[in-house]
Amino acid sequence: MASSGKYLFDIDKYREFPRWYHEILKKADIVDIRYPVKGMIVWRPYGFKALRNIQKIMIRLLEETGHEEAYFPTLIPESVFSLEEDFLKGFGGETFVVSGTGSKKFQEKLYVRPTSETAMYYMWRLWVKGRKDLPIKMYQIVNVFRYETKATHPILRVREIASFIEAHTAHATMEEAEKQIREALDIYKRFYDELLIPYFIVLTPPWDTFAGAEYNYDFITPMPDGKALELGSVINLGQKFSKAFEIVFMDEDGSVKHVYQTCYGISERSLGSVISVHGDNKGLFFPPKIAPIQVVIVPIMRVGETHILDYARKVRDYLRERGVRVYLDDDPEHTPGWKYYYWDMKGVPTRIEIGRREYEGKTATIARRDRREKKTVSLEKLVEELHSVWKDIEKVLYERALEHFKKLVIVTEDPEEAVGRKGLIVTPWDETEECANELESITGKSVLGTIVESPIELPVSGRSVCGGKKTSKWALLGVTY
Amino acid sequence: MASSGKYLFDIDKYREFPRWYHEILKKADIVDIRYPVKGMIVWRPYGFKALRNIQKIMIRLLEETGHEEAYFPTLIPESVFSLEEDFLKGFGGETFVVSGTGSKKFQEKLYVRPTSETAMYYMWRLWVKGRKDLPIKMYQIVNVFRYETKATHPILRVREIASFIEAHTAHATMEEAEKQIREALDIYKRFYDELLIPYFIVLTPPWDTFAGAEYNYDFITPMPDGKALELGSVINLGQKFSKAFEIVFMDEDGSVKHVYQTCYGISERSLGSVISVHGDNKGLFFPPKIAPIQVVIVPIMRVGETHILDYARKVRDYLRERGVRVYLDDDPEHTPGWKYYYWDMKGVPTRIEIGRREYEGKTATIARRDRREKKTVSLEKLVEELHSVWKDIEKVLYERALEHFKKLVIVTEDPEEAVGRKGLIVTPWDETEECANELESITGKSVLGTIVESPIELPVSGRSVCGGKKTSKWALLGVTY
Repeated sequence: MASSGKYLFDIDKYREFPRWYHEILKKADIVDIRYPVKGMIVWRPYGFKALRNIQKIMIRLLEETGHEEAYFPTLIPESVFSLEEDFLKGFGGETFVVSGTGSKKFQEKLYVRPTSETAMYYMWRLWVKGRKDLPIKMYQIVNVFRYETKATHPILRVREIASFIEAHTAHATMEEAEKQIREALDIYKRFYDELLIPYFIVLTPPWDTFAGAEYNYDFITPMPDGKALELGSVINLGQKFSKAFEIVFMDEDGSVKHVYQTCYGISERSLGSVISVHGDNKGLFFPPKIAPIQVVIVPIMRVGETHILDYARKVRDYLRERGVRVYLDDDPEHTPGWKYYYWDMKGVPTRIEIGRREYEGKTATIARRDRREKKTVSLEKLVEELHSVWKDIEKVLYERALEHFKKLVIVTEDPEEAVGRKGLIVTPWDETEECANELESITGKSVLGTIVESPIELPVSGRSVCGGKKTSKWALLGVTY
Repeated sequence: MASSGKYLFDIDKYREFPRWYHEILKKADIVDIRYPVKGMIVWRPYGFKALRNIQKIMIRLLEETGHEEAYFPTLIPESVFSLEEDFLKGFGGETFVVSGTGSKKFQEKLYVRPTSETAMYYMWRLWVKGRKDLPIKMYQIVNVFRYETKATHPILRVREIASFIEAHTAHATMEEAEKQIREALDIYKRFYDELLIPYFIVLTPPWDTFAGAEYNYDFITPMPDGKALELGSVINLGQKFSKAFEIVFMDEDGSVKHVYQTCYGISERSLGSVISVHGDNKGLFFPPKIAPIQVVIVPIMRVGETHILDYARKVRDYLRERGVRVYLDDDPEHTPGWKYYYWDMKGVPTRIEIGRREYEGKTATIARRDRREKKTVSLEKLVEELHSVWKDIEKVLYERALEHFKKLVIVTEDPEEAVGRKGLIVTPWDETEECANELESITGKSVLGTIVESPIELPVSGRSVCGGKKTSKWALLGVTY
């Protein structure tokens, strides 16, 4: 029954990634890109469920570490938006502006948040008085808007980010802010570890640092086409905003000090990475923690064998009561074989087959999305077995992702030899702008930063093509989305 | 210890409601109204937690009835926004408009959604082909924007609605749409029943019907100042939008038909009603289901009695593991008595006192927000006892709310006698615009609709002041927020 038909989806992900990506977003009901504003897309229920599951992971990590959720307005008066000069320069041009209503022009323009520093910090000035008001650790889950001038890509580069999880903190000292940066890095590491996505962490070069920041880190992973996807930023703002917004507190010694601030954000790109990294030529492959449907039940029966369907319903209810996200596909118009391919394409990590044998034995047969292997277990052992299978699938997904990660990263002392090859380049450098220019002109790719953490082992040091000195600093180069 | 000090909050809610409302929003850390755009407010974490808990109730009700969550863009091209004429007339003037970015003017203006009919239905045209694509039952939780010309009030009437839960449906026949209207009414009834808010349901008069609708129902409750709060709308759109947006399907008989549509939405006003209806002169009073903190633990100990604090922590962890939202107030700078008042003001429905006696007996003493009554129970019985106390508090809150509801509603055949009195007016009418004008000129209040459901018993019929005929139709009149 299984493998005679044609796959419902069959595109080589590594050879034809752009086509693979667009087709799977459509076929698997993730998003619809036909909305009539460029760069703005519609999230269909199946895709949005996956996004909600990803949000839940981040919410848990933020709440566990003492971040509290708040909500600040979307629209920011021009006078407030302009308070921090670098920020205005960096974001002003690409920010949507409300100048009135359908029937009225406003005296002051309102900026539609591209990120919420200015809205938040205007209020923090009013909230912070003494040391007891610090630290502030706050987050919000909001839509933000950026009029991207680069080519837009569904989920990966959009003009309305539907799910921006932005965290902001304020501290009494730089040391505390730096400690917070480490906590934030740790949160994002745990987050992408749960998503089974291998990543580089880089320290962004000064000329590419977030507008209004002292320095920032980026999480970056290669996509199947060899381009770089920025997965999230962790930013030390120092006192730049607190000086612009006059966020001060009276310290215990009576002196008035500006607070030190950090911020960090991730978006639906995290789901974009899950789709792109874990998917294969048959379609999506959701890690069990994220999957909108963790198990699909496919009944295998002849006409009239309603007792098998009844039993399948019983199994469904049994799993649902135990917190499993389960769906029973009892559509009589499709064969079991068709359903196998369909739900493989939709990325469901495990399938349960229920036929006469399972009915008679009060068992269920588990099939995995990652390999041709089935196991029949009793109903009592089913939940335990599913969790054990999921754990193993997680391991397989991460290993597979890491294997491809390695193939998409070229580690070399000689960037010349990477020219024309697909992937990110890792090469020694001296962190100067001159060296960046040299590397970029050799490779045609951008320096994204100095690698501070890598899932693959890098040599302790190497000889940089810039000046030929030995260095332990490795630059990451790539073409970004 | 208990009642010697002054209340931290003490404002007569019924005599001075506007002051009570503004003060409690501030003191209890619900919202901050100092954001520099009129009608846009900041949600502080404590208030936002309550809002999230309310959202969860609605999400559960919508999911249970087969609604799926999606997400549609915030910005709507003018050409799409203008497709349904009545809608454009009704919403165009009060809709925020994006005409460009900080550095660029757009060719076509983008409207910032005041509600999402136009964004959604543009896509539904692409999604609906045959009867098998129907019904659609979809919802989203989004921010929407309305440039209100009426006086704004924090949470109750704002220019950015932070938590609009809008559901939209499409059906093959008018009968199915009408069935959906009944389901929606039922969902909202269950929702406000869980919030312990008594409400009228009215059928809105034709001249006040939602722009682009056939007819709509409103949920309405009186506020402590006697004004009317509209809690949510359930709207039958008929085929108006499907004709404007050409949402058609091929029926089984081969004919092409326009779908029938409904929509219904609620906002953070639901939390505004909870705050206003259940609060009292001591401050907030959150129903246990909604309370950000369901139980506050106050240790009562002398300096050095750290074993009591340790035991309090143990009780906290014990409750937290069992799903109770609990907070241990171990601040050494305040007395237990001060804490009692503080947490009463914040609306925490139950308190646990842990002193020497509780430590020695391995017990906990539960105190209730609604009455001076304490009960000491063993740790093993604590969760069960809390749930039983909460159930009783829910009963008390609803009864109290209903009692005040009755005081704020004047049922009379002679609207003359209600003039100058605080509250909503219920009076017989013949549903004509002439009669509405007459009633409005007598009372100075607006006709909000014909009551179709009431938590208080109304006479079967009455004699209307318009023409003096007997009728079983009762008009609801009030001044709205």
